[in-house]
Amino acid sequence: MDTLLINNVLLDGIRQNVLIEGNRFKAISTEKIEVAATEVVDGSRFAMVPPFYNGHCHAAMVLLRGFADDLPLQAWLNDSIWPMEAKLTAEDIYAGSRLAILEMIKSGTVFFEDMYWEEQETARAVEEMGVRAAIGVSLMDRQSAAEKDRLFERLRHYKPTERVSYTVAPHAIYTVGTELLLRCKKAADENGQYLNIHLAETMTEDADCRKAHNGMSPVEYMDSIGLLSPKTILAHVVHVDQRDQEILARSGAVCVHNPASNMKLSSGVFKMKELQKNGCRIALGTDGASSNNNLDMIDEMKLAALLAKCYADSEAGAATDIFKMATQWGAEAFGLDAGVIAEGKLADALLIDLDNEKLVPNYNLVSNLVYAADCSCIDTVICNGKIIMRNRVVPGEKEIIEQARATCDSLIARK
Amino acid sequence: MDTLLINNVLLDGIRQNVLIEGNRFKAISTEKIEVAATEVVDGSRFAMVPPFYNGHCHAAMVLLRGFADDLPLQAWLNDSIWPMEAKLTAEDIYAGSRLAILEMIKSGTVFFEDMYWEEQETARAVEEMGVRAAIGVSLMDRQSAAEKDRLFERLRHYKPTERVSYTVAPHAIYTVGTELLLRCKKAADENGQYLNIHLAETMTEDADCRKAHNGMSPVEYMDSIGLLSPKTILAHVVHVDQRDQEILARSGAVCVHNPASNMKLSSGVFKMKELQKNGCRIALGTDGASSNNNLDMIDEMKLAALLAKCYADSEAGAATDIFKMATQWGAEAFGLDAGVIAEGKLADALLIDLDNEKLVPNYNLVSNLVYAADCSCIDTVICNGKIIMRNRVVPGEKEIIEQARATCDSLIARK
Repeated sequence: MDTLLINNVLLDGIRQNVLIEGNRFKAISTEKIEVAATEVVDGSRFAMVPPFYNGHCHAAMVLLRGFADDLPLQAWLNDSIWPMEAKLTAEDIYAGSRLAILEMIKSGTVFFEDMYWEEQETARAVEEMGVRAAIGVSLMDRQSAAEKDRLFERLRHYKPTERVSYTVAPHAIYTVGTELLLRCKKAADENGQYLNIHLAETMTEDADCRKAHNGMSPVEYMDSIGLLSPKTILAHVVHVDQRDQEILARSGAVCVHNPASNMKLSSGVFKMKELQKNGCRIALGTDGASSNNNLDMIDEMKLAALLAKCYADSEAGAATDIFKMATQWGAEAFGLDAGVIAEGKLADALLIDLDNEKLVPNYNLVSNLVYAADCSCIDTVICNGKIIMRNRVVPGEKEIIEQARATCDSLIARK
Repeated sequence: MDTLLINNVLLDGIRQNVLIEGNRFKAISTEKIEVAATEVVDGSRFAMVPPFYNGHCHAAMVLLRGFADDLPLQAWLNDSIWPMEAKLTAEDIYAGSRLAILEMIKSGTVFFEDMYWEEQETARAVEEMGVRAAIGVSLMDRQSAAEKDRLFERLRHYKPTERVSYTVAPHAIYTVGTELLLRCKKAADENGQYLNIHLAETMTEDADCRKAHNGMSPVEYMDSIGLLSPKTILAHVVHVDQRDQEILARSGAVCVHNPASNMKLSSGVFKMKELQKNGCRIALGTDGASSNNNLDMIDEMKLAALLAKCYADSEAGAATDIFKMATQWGAEAFGLDAGVIAEGKLADALLIDLDNEKLVPNYNLVSNLVYAADCSCIDTVICNGKIIMRNRVVPGEKEIIEQARATCDSLIARK
């Protein structure tokens, strides 16, 4: 098995040596680790921290980055985003997924939950580029019966690989009726897969749900039909009252905060402090690039921390919690044995460049990462024991960018 | 005079050639510019945009970056920030200013308004490092009469240089009484200097002002004593009602938005959409690094855009306005003949790396810069006709960081 030894790296505030064997952390010690490692990295310029786990994304939407902004939600969707998305081919999704993964690696993310179309193309890009993903198969009422059967059949056959798993992804309660939701839940249970859905994102969704379902909120409705479990991942979860939060806590479902998207689309404010107080599981995500407009979890951490304080008080959204939300809690949400640097855990890590001006002085590394850093502070990304970025270079990045550009040019030109 | 020719650069959506002579843009053309320039830059990988003008900063506070976070305001100030600041020497301020300016250059900022102590040290760093600044001489009631006289005397003697001007900077209406405010205004008028102050930052300030001044809001009070003019720069300006905004618009005073700081300290939300509707002049600033915790105007643009939408609707805080707020409107606020790329204007510019993954695709460069970019997208910074960063390297950065680190180590150790 390949071994990777990182010597003299700042970890938990002290200089340590870290040995990775295969895809796991084998040994972590302040003492010299005597081993003839396949590769040795001098960590003296670096701190080692867990990388980011992006809890909610539509990766290939980077193809629409900046295509339409500053519009009312419905005009944005109906007139700009959906007509463009209708033109996307499988090859486009592949090119977009590669660009998205490149951007994620360069900003320290090694895992993302995805919800889009042509999931096999996103999976192909993930496998090739060395990251992890939980890739949703998207379901909506508007799909034909045959199409739905085909998607459920695909879900039934998908087996997780070392880095890729699949999830059942009904889009939202306003695009997926009770019958299809129940079929999704059954499939998730039978296949041992996670279920992910957008929930309680807008006031309109909340009002429509109450009208359609005897006054029940989106959370109450989902609970009433048995859709909430520790393997349910909910994106946005903005409009939730005290009762909703108690249901969420009891269910063990994970609430993924998407601060940039919620702010940009004026959806509302994620109640981080209340959700934590009520014992809800939380994680952090970027959403797609057309409502963000990047996939950078460092941006997202700062937004989440500041938004929590802006909405509550200056003690809310503490940096230590925000950092866990972006790392450990994100990994745990998807059942990954990762998200912390510890012996036996999956070997995912970042090497942080301590000479970056934004990290000076270094009174508190976590605070610096949450409030001051940007992606230029990340030198090296390790996923599943392999170095996938070193000295800020990802193998093949030029070609990935050229392919994405050509795809966008073609997309615009295409009728 | 030195000339700098940048060929084939993307400017306003088309490929152009840009000639800088001395410190101004001499010629901008789609045609080849026939000149034997002192230096020629191939712009084909780049877009040229105006750089950032940081409307409110306490530069040397980078020395306290991450020293204390996630605390209530008064505990943060009384127990953490002020005791540390009391230890700062002139040499510390110089080291801190250099680190701050390094960070600003690396994130595309060529000008900042500063309000701190030992202003001559910040000025020294600004002159050496090639940027611009309007440097405040800070005044507070708690200074002795002799100290105040000394500071006003310094202000009277300060003459602006090509890149540095000085401002009269009463700290805030809760630390500076009417008498000293009037003396500041008189000095500013006599010396031809700008006056800058924190205003309407917190609810407490608003309540205390109304109690002390016959029910007047901070804006009404400032107006009543004649302190508002087009040469008055107001930082924060969070708690302002319709009447306040009409006064601000009529006065021509500039309101500097500091979104990260206002959010982090839970001060309240800048009413960007309303202020614009009421015809108020606005600009953008980072505030000091201990309430941000960086000096990156790209972060600040994204925060300002998203916060405007979160507070109002998805059409508020449009990217075009946000970009102007960080560039042109900021330069105009301080009377600089800069902030746009045009013949005759002061030659300040950024070369943006179009191959950065966050700028792909490039449907809309301004949108990409506001919502997607980070400092890694900036390749070159030009200020006053001189290149002060190229290929992301600022001359002497290693030594600047080492000096700042040593200063912080000494500061912590010092009784």
